[in-house]
Amino acid sequence: MKRAPKHRRPGPRERRLLRPAIAGLEPYVPGRSIEEVAAERGIAPDRIVKLGSNENPLGASPRALAALAAAGPQLHLYPDATARDLREGLERWWRRRVDLGAARIVAGNGMDNVLDTLARLLLQPGDTVIVCPPTFSWYELSARLAGAEPIFVPRRKRDLRVDVHAVLGAVRPSTRIIYLCTPNNPSGDTLTRAEVEALARGTDCLLFLDEAYADFADRTFMAEAGRRRHVVVGRTFSKAWGLAGLRIGYAALPDWLAPAYLKAATPFVVSRAATSAALAALDDDEHLARTLAMVRTGRDRYARELPRLGLRTCPSAANFVAVRTAPRSAAEVCAALAAEGVIVRDCTSFSGAGDDLVRITVGTDEQNSRVLDALARLFPPRA
Amino acid sequence: MKRAPKHRRPGPRERRLLRPAIAGLEPYVPGRSIEEVAAERGIAPDRIVKLGSNENPLGASPRALAALAAAGPQLHLYPDATARDLREGLERWWRRRVDLGAARIVAGNGMDNVLDTLARLLLQPGDTVIVCPPTFSWYELSARLAGAEPIFVPRRKRDLRVDVHAVLGAVRPSTRIIYLCTPNNPSGDTLTRAEVEALARGTDCLLFLDEAYADFADRTFMAEAGRRRHVVVGRTFSKAWGLAGLRIGYAALPDWLAPAYLKAATPFVVSRAATSAALAALDDDEHLARTLAMVRTGRDRYARELPRLGLRTCPSAANFVAVRTAPRSAAEVCAALAAEGVIVRDCTSFSGAGDDLVRITVGTDEQNSRVLDALARLFPPRA
Repeated sequence: MKRAPKHRRPGPRERRLLRPAIAGLEPYVPGRSIEEVAAERGIAPDRIVKLGSNENPLGASPRALAALAAAGPQLHLYPDATARDLREGLERWWRRRVDLGAARIVAGNGMDNVLDTLARLLLQPGDTVIVCPPTFSWYELSARLAGAEPIFVPRRKRDLRVDVHAVLGAVRPSTRIIYLCTPNNPSGDTLTRAEVEALARGTDCLLFLDEAYADFADRTFMAEAGRRRHVVVGRTFSKAWGLAGLRIGYAALPDWLAPAYLKAATPFVVSRAATSAALAALDDDEHLARTLAMVRTGRDRYARELPRLGLRTCPSAANFVAVRTAPRSAAEVCAALAAEGVIVRDCTSFSGAGDDLVRITVGTDEQNSRVLDALARLFPPRA
Repeated sequence: MKRAPKHRRPGPRERRLLRPAIAGLEPYVPGRSIEEVAAERGIAPDRIVKLGSNENPLGASPRALAALAAAGPQLHLYPDATARDLREGLERWWRRRVDLGAARIVAGNGMDNVLDTLARLLLQPGDTVIVCPPTFSWYELSARLAGAEPIFVPRRKRDLRVDVHAVLGAVRPSTRIIYLCTPNNPSGDTLTRAEVEALARGTDCLLFLDEAYADFADRTFMAEAGRRRHVVVGRTFSKAWGLAGLRIGYAALPDWLAPAYLKAATPFVVSRAATSAALAALDDDEHLARTLAMVRTGRDRYARELPRLGLRTCPSAANFVAVRTAPRSAAEVCAALAAEGVIVRDCTSFSGAGDDLVRITVGTDEQNSRVLDALARLFPPRA
């Protein structure tokens, strides 16, 4: 077969087609996959422990998997264009737990997609958003892709907590969204009620509270989306719910925002497979309880054992712990662990994290032992 | 539980948060679902024939369903961030069929998502795009959501074909994308090679050729994405491949564009469920052949029988036929068919279609009989 000549780079004619904002954009850096590390290190995939992407090592709820299989005969049909079944199911589930007030729930193809849809709804060139690094990097990228510029308000060096006063001081007339992750990825700390109160009172900007990890914490701010006209709370099925592979995120919005959100969202954005599995997972209290118990036990173990290796860690309310590895670099530590078939997350790609922060997903007891044993070889315990 | 006071409409403070472009936006109008019509008409869902959304009545490939079930144990793991498995599988499949040259394939959460990602890559306020109505309405909405304005170049009244000369004449310095659907939704006609050649030679804008229905036609322009630096060809698993419920679209891009596309795409946009099912479907030649044979037979039948009812139809290369229902309106005809449990598509929401265009998906022989019998009661055959 004849191949056309290779032409990899955009010429001047092509460059004219691309939005200028794209050229300077850094790509998103995901955690490493089992396949990648298996190929690189020559280790059998089933011998690799993946604790790099905060997934649920217990897998998806068996009910979710049964519902997925049962959806097969319907898969040639489009799902509801605005994911109505899933939105309604989530609203029922949440109203039994918190006072959602007039809040409405919208759903997307993972929380990344919910963030992108909000960006498309609120952001245009000339706008700014506030991001508090180190934190989840998609806030910045999603906003930049919508043409907005991030204003960075770094977390406090000491404990990686948000400086609420500095956040409010950084708001400009062009600022549209303040993104905050609670519990924060990668540090694991949560905002307090007083902090959220101060932020909500102190600004008119949209306050996006990312609760991807809040299932593991002792507090949620979901009710704020019903009480305040400018608070949105994001949630996901990718962490505690064990469905990262299906891509389901959602958010509670103040009700004035929901109709506009549904107009700005891509139609059919949540698949039938995702809808069926998510609704069934919501009915499986037992799987969630087992997951949360495992995470609490593992988190306590890391909090106990990491300091014995001389490693500093922050108190975490999530399903991961962040570890400072200095004087060794995060890259060095992650490579050494990968050589033993253990994947953890090098946080160097998180802007503002420094080069010595490693994030370890809490796994099963056996998986946590693999990590701690490997770390003990790198950081021999103090006598 | 105490409910917060209802506040449905954005006040001035909220309105300031929304991009001005959102306010005037019309929502996307999807085809009607079985559940909707069942509830409205009091008909059992399993007695309803849905021929309104160009789905495959034979369902998904059995291989795809088996692969989906087999993916269950992996669903707690994130998919590849850029859908590499699926992209590579599609490139292998296509290279056995056409000369893709240096083209690259990218994948998304349905073709709507591919369109949105291209819009985010290329469009910003001040830009224009060209749309040729009546056609798929997401081109206009996707472009507007990215801040661009559509320039409408209507299809010829007589046969609903594109006026290539008028398209080229409408290009302004601000024009970034020309969207063309081939076969066109809802008219069913395809562009000729000479027309694509004239368009590609006549402009520097990105030419987006939507081939959602090209599996049913006798031509594809996939090779153009490898030969030209400004042609993108979109494809989907929602039609011939029977996977509308899983949301899988893709596109062949000139290679200079692919790296930028991957940066602008939401990470993890294609789920593990979608990837597994799509790759397995590609291996099922038999299911596809059966689908195409059914569509050809049904299309011929409609072409033969509709004129006997005095109904005008365009020659179709897709899995649907468009019918002019004047003097009756499309709304009236669709309501009458819905009362008999038959869903077809009222094209009144397609801008430029007029109020007497109905689109009928080609179904199984039995389903087609249901449609034709119902139409015969509305339009008694000429003696």
